[in-house]
Amino acid sequence: MTTVDNGVNVQALLDAREVLKGAPEAAQFTWKASSTWQNGVHSTTRIQGFHGLGAEQSHKTETVFDADHPEIFAAEDNGITPIEYLLVGLASCLTAGVASVAQNRGIQLRSVEASLEGKHDIRGILGIDGDVRNGFNDIKVTFTIDADASEKDIAALVAQSQKRSAVFDALTNPTNVTVEVA
Amino acid sequence: MTTVDNGVNVQALLDAREVLKGAPEAAQFTWKASSTWQNGVHSTTRIQGFHGLGAEQSHKTETVFDADHPEIFAAEDNGITPIEYLLVGLASCLTAGVASVAQNRGIQLRSVEASLEGKHDIRGILGIDGDVRNGFNDIKVTFTIDADASEKDIAALVAQSQKRSAVFDALTNPTNVTVEVA
Repeated sequence: MTTVDNGVNVQALLDAREVLKGAPEAAQFTWKASSTWQNGVHSTTRIQGFHGLGAEQSHKTETVFDADHPEIFAAEDNGITPIEYLLVGLASCLTAGVASVAQNRGIQLRSVEASLEGKHDIRGILGIDGDVRNGFNDIKVTFTIDADASEKDIAALVAQSQKRSAVFDALTNPTNVTVEVA
Repeated sequence: MTTVDNGVNVQALLDAREVLKGAPEAAQFTWKASSTWQNGVHSTTRIQGFHGLGAEQSHKTETVFDADHPEIFAAEDNGITPIEYLLVGLASCLTAGVASVAQNRGIQLRSVEASLEGKHDIRGILGIDGDVRNGFNDIKVTFTIDADASEKDIAALVAQSQKRSAVFDALTNPTNVTVEVA
């Protein structure tokens, strides 16, 4: 009997793994978002419904996210920039992974903090230099973790989290994105 | 004299381009985020400060983002999933680009809506099949745009937005991500 409780229901995830092994079609998820231009570079994006386990699903509530550019770009700063949303996704994905893997390995977490830095040469998006990419040059994530575990075991937690992270994969490997006009 | 007003200060962006052409070091931005594990797979990520134009900068306010997993994953659904944040970033980046390019081309926008779908086979993150990637299989973005322009010119707006989009690049091309434990 472990008394470790990180709040992750690992048994449910292990059960889901067994069920989905025999039902690959149920493992096909579609995440959805719909956005509306407001004014300038300000937009709002709504997220609630998604598809998975063979049916339409829904978050408990709809969440609305504002994105804009800061005042130094002559905008109104009604929200964070689009590229900063990628850091939110990366931080939360790796953190969720650390908690899940810790639970599975019987390691009690006390605190997990991450600080992220994404380097971005904006000469790309401004069209100044065609050799400069539009996206991040690189991203650095630094975890500070307090847990009932050795430094080595904590490093292994973080490594396993990366190995199974949806967002880490989405940023480090290419994805096909199709953009159409209705 | 154009009377087109999409709320984008294109002149300021063109001026910035001229200034940054001769000052590449000022174009080096660092976007920052810090996250805290709450419980289970729930975390909060804070964004406010960033570095750019050779100095520390700040959004007007700090924004806090909750991420969690939905109840069908035996979690509490205190926020959208990490991978959904990538769709927020992509929607808002392409939309900002459409508005900026339209302003630069003298096209008055009336409405810009985008719907996004990210296909995700969760057998990857569950460790069921090593041949299934962790991230999105593919993403589809569909714009519906009402503007004073031909279909062809609207299609060209969207194409140019992709060409200069930071997030489109970050998702369609690989970025080096380093993860360390402090």
